[in-house]
Amino acid sequence: MNMMNGAAVAGLVDKHKPTLEKAAAAAGARGYWSAYPEHLKAYGETAKDDGEAAFKAHLGKAFDIEVPGASGTVGSEQSPFGVDLGITYPKPDIDAVLKAAQGAMKGWRRASADQRAAVCVEILERLNKKTPEILFAVMHTTGQAFMMAFQAGGPHAQDRGLEAVTYGWMAQTQVPAGEVTWEKPQGKNPPLVMKKRWHVSPRGVAVVVGCATFPTWNGYPGLFASLVTGNPVVVKPHPGAVLPLAITVTVAREVLAEAGFDPNLVTLAADSVDAPITKELCTRPEVKIIDFTGSTAFGDWLEQNCRQAQVYTEKAGVNFVVIDSTNDFKGMVRNMAFTLSLYTGQMCTTTQNIFVPKGGIETEDGHKSFDEVAQALAAGVDKFLSDPARAVEVLGAVQNPATAARIDEAKGFGTVLLDSRSIEHPYLKGARVRTPLLLAVDKKAADTYCRECFGPVAFVIACDDTADCLATARRTAMEHGAITAGLYSVKPDVVEDAVEACLDAQVALSVNLTGGVFVNQTAAFSDFHATGGNPAANASLTDLAFVANRFRFVGVREPA
Amino acid sequence: MNMMNGAAVAGLVDKHKPTLEKAAAAAGARGYWSAYPEHLKAYGETAKDDGEAAFKAHLGKAFDIEVPGASGTVGSEQSPFGVDLGITYPKPDIDAVLKAAQGAMKGWRRASADQRAAVCVEILERLNKKTPEILFAVMHTTGQAFMMAFQAGGPHAQDRGLEAVTYGWMAQTQVPAGEVTWEKPQGKNPPLVMKKRWHVSPRGVAVVVGCATFPTWNGYPGLFASLVTGNPVVVKPHPGAVLPLAITVTVAREVLAEAGFDPNLVTLAADSVDAPITKELCTRPEVKIIDFTGSTAFGDWLEQNCRQAQVYTEKAGVNFVVIDSTNDFKGMVRNMAFTLSLYTGQMCTTTQNIFVPKGGIETEDGHKSFDEVAQALAAGVDKFLSDPARAVEVLGAVQNPATAARIDEAKGFGTVLLDSRSIEHPYLKGARVRTPLLLAVDKKAADTYCRECFGPVAFVIACDDTADCLATARRTAMEHGAITAGLYSVKPDVVEDAVEACLDAQVALSVNLTGGVFVNQTAAFSDFHATGGNPAANASLTDLAFVANRFRFVGVREPA
Repeated sequence: MNMMNGAAVAGLVDKHKPTLEKAAAAAGARGYWSAYPEHLKAYGETAKDDGEAAFKAHLGKAFDIEVPGASGTVGSEQSPFGVDLGITYPKPDIDAVLKAAQGAMKGWRRASADQRAAVCVEILERLNKKTPEILFAVMHTTGQAFMMAFQAGGPHAQDRGLEAVTYGWMAQTQVPAGEVTWEKPQGKNPPLVMKKRWHVSPRGVAVVVGCATFPTWNGYPGLFASLVTGNPVVVKPHPGAVLPLAITVTVAREVLAEAGFDPNLVTLAADSVDAPITKELCTRPEVKIIDFTGSTAFGDWLEQNCRQAQVYTEKAGVNFVVIDSTNDFKGMVRNMAFTLSLYTGQMCTTTQNIFVPKGGIETEDGHKSFDEVAQALAAGVDKFLSDPARAVEVLGAVQNPATAARIDEAKGFGTVLLDSRSIEHPYLKGARVRTPLLLAVDKKAADTYCRECFGPVAFVIACDDTADCLATARRTAMEHGAITAGLYSVKPDVVEDAVEACLDAQVALSVNLTGGVFVNQTAAFSDFHATGGNPAANASLTDLAFVANRFRFVGVREPA
Repeated sequence: MNMMNGAAVAGLVDKHKPTLEKAAAAAGARGYWSAYPEHLKAYGETAKDDGEAAFKAHLGKAFDIEVPGASGTVGSEQSPFGVDLGITYPKPDIDAVLKAAQGAMKGWRRASADQRAAVCVEILERLNKKTPEILFAVMHTTGQAFMMAFQAGGPHAQDRGLEAVTYGWMAQTQVPAGEVTWEKPQGKNPPLVMKKRWHVSPRGVAVVVGCATFPTWNGYPGLFASLVTGNPVVVKPHPGAVLPLAITVTVAREVLAEAGFDPNLVTLAADSVDAPITKELCTRPEVKIIDFTGSTAFGDWLEQNCRQAQVYTEKAGVNFVVIDSTNDFKGMVRNMAFTLSLYTGQMCTTTQNIFVPKGGIETEDGHKSFDEVAQALAAGVDKFLSDPARAVEVLGAVQNPATAARIDEAKGFGTVLLDSRSIEHPYLKGARVRTPLLLAVDKKAADTYCRECFGPVAFVIACDDTADCLATARRTAMEHGAITAGLYSVKPDVVEDAVEACLDAQVALSVNLTGGVFVNQTAAFSDFHATGGNPAANASLTDLAFVANRFRFVGVREPA
């Protein structure tokens, strides 16, 4: 039975088709474009207070959401800013969740690509309205500072979601939605004439395995790519960051139900650290698509063990910057200090390895030795974070206590250029705030810099010369993965060599960033996030490859 | 070093851009379109004689082709029509072939998507000119009859190749080829302005593992999809059908060299049944893409063991037709008789399982019992093949002696409705010609009809009723794979149910074929060949999913 509310769905198509068309044009042009405002005042005069109030209303309560077959509760979120959230979520029954998801699929499959896309854009628009609430949910689960939690957790995540909807919509509309006449001439005989049409058949149940640091930004692409292509989606948040996705699932279910679809097209399957369900859920034969962001170990496990599913993973990597030369040394240091500090190095795009020729570099102020470069970077970070009130608004808090512990462990890995400090948050007592640790290491210490040291730890690595920097960086990215690469050079041939190295390692390259754009930031509809071509990720946010295999075309033909 | 011949390549882009644009429009519209004529006279008055002479010039000789590191020869092709080809090919050195392929990649990667596509279309155009020679090469390796070897081995294969080029070109041109300015407003401050461009970075060495029955038709999509997206391609033909691909590789190398690219972008790696190299080749870490057509056992092996590569497989399946009712019983029988006979059932699209309600069906002549339907099909095939001279031009010859042996073995699987016969070929003595075996089996004999019995063996299966036919067919396709499905019914609700079943099983459906279109034929630019959504194949010829993951976008950005 298809309960679709025809009038409601038609209204959504009319309402959102212009957005989809603009988004498709933007994805093709790849200039700047965004659908959702990134300044807080666009969300109303009282957005901040309203968001905080809505967030606080969740604290200490059972989150109100229907989960198929649920009995009991889970929930153990702790704010990295020192607040015990005390929220519980229904404990799912995997059989019931999967059965409900499968049952919901047929009506959704029967909808057109335009209709599914319009419903998805409506979900995103409602999520956008809830940005202030989601902001605080993101902030107090991930440890992101206020402004980042707002932008990355709200409009930027929504833009990435819209991007996935757009690509999914484009991939489906590569064939005509309606009936086509195929007429093949037969010389003097009458032509062969067939009526044909193609149906989008989704893969099956999709699972989104959320991460603790960017639950919405990293979760929305997979969620919306699967949903728009007809698949029901089970959202399995990280136990430490459930609330942002629980709110998201609630909104999706509301919109789906209003449009007359089964709300179980999007379900929440929360678990706890003590009783994880991800392996059991993801190996179920009903599960045909998995989107995962997290550790290399678990991502590899999913790829190896969930052979029944298309598995899209974003894992760890060793992002790098190569410094060859610059004509804006101060700008370079300032830019890199921000990159290393932002969200305490907990972005999958944060630079870890900074390769510098051991003989130093040329700058607008003449030659700087390796030590001068390394010290300048350390001093730059230190200065940038000298005012605690300003520092905490960049650093945020450390999401996981294990990350904080790793900083101390890392101090023995090289020569300390800048030690990590704890900062007392001016108004959020108990916040876990740390500053970056910067170490100088020799190129030979590959064991140290060839694995991701997640969190605010970066290495300045002395290589023989620029060519050696590039060759080492290239090799580390090919073997251990990288999502971002940076280069500072005033020499066109070095830039050309760096491009070739990045083409080999399939990692995006940012050249000579000295101003307000940072290597760890990517913009939806323009920058691809990861390429999918090295061990850091097997997929890219968002290209056609990310969406095109989430459904199949089933042709039906009949003589006319 | 990039040896690209700029003027030659520019000329090819000018020459072939209109074809690409027409092909892209055709792929979007999915009406009838073909780039290469399928009537022999388009290839010249003397095409047949010229083709045969060119083919015969290869016999008993060493095939003249450069293969990196080759020493010694392989070659044991036997014509199913009774001719010993006696052709030898250089025995490749895998290390040398892979090294040469990798070395060839950089110059090709540096070319634009337009340039690569134009070179590929030029290769196809030259292949098209060689159609008469390829015709005989296909005929005398696969056993296809003359007309099929011409059409399927020549223009239809070339159309499928062009389709892959077109999709690969479209997937690459989803982002602008040139530099883009990204300008983000910053309120009252000056905007952030970046120059960006995106490079296509190919995965790496691709291997095409050819099959014995359709070496060009099934080989070209993977070959051209990989090549157009920047990957060097190693062509590993089936030991029984080397010649058609050896000619293809020769043409590709000529065109690449003329355009100033390294001819080792396409290399031939022939082997023999006694000393197969496919496993060693395909598990090499340098190999990043594999396209395979063949058995389920070997396809599964590749998927399991070549985890370093994107593996595209087309394997076995149990194609079905469900007969519910018809208003053209004679047309139905005639159509199915042709389908079962064409190329002696050796197409991956041939119907194997014919599900019929045990209570019979309604027709324009009233009710027909199950036995009447089964006997009519048997009589239809028998009558269709009663004239040997006409029969051999449809049946062709049986490619593999094992397939012929399987027919005899299959006789014990059910009640023989029509026995298989040997036919003496009127003018090709020694040709291995067999007619189809048709058996009636009970629905309970799932062990019999749930595995592919490759070759001219089909089962008429009695089910409880139409719903049971559809449910059984759906389940067999989901569990064991299917590339084609057919339905005969005059009832719209039954058609609707069949569409739903085929959406579940992700198999293309042909309804009420009674004329000159057959379930086992698919047309490039309109019908997808396989969906990629059931065990018969993990990819579809050709959709965006088939091409989009053969390369990655690497972005390079710099402040403007």
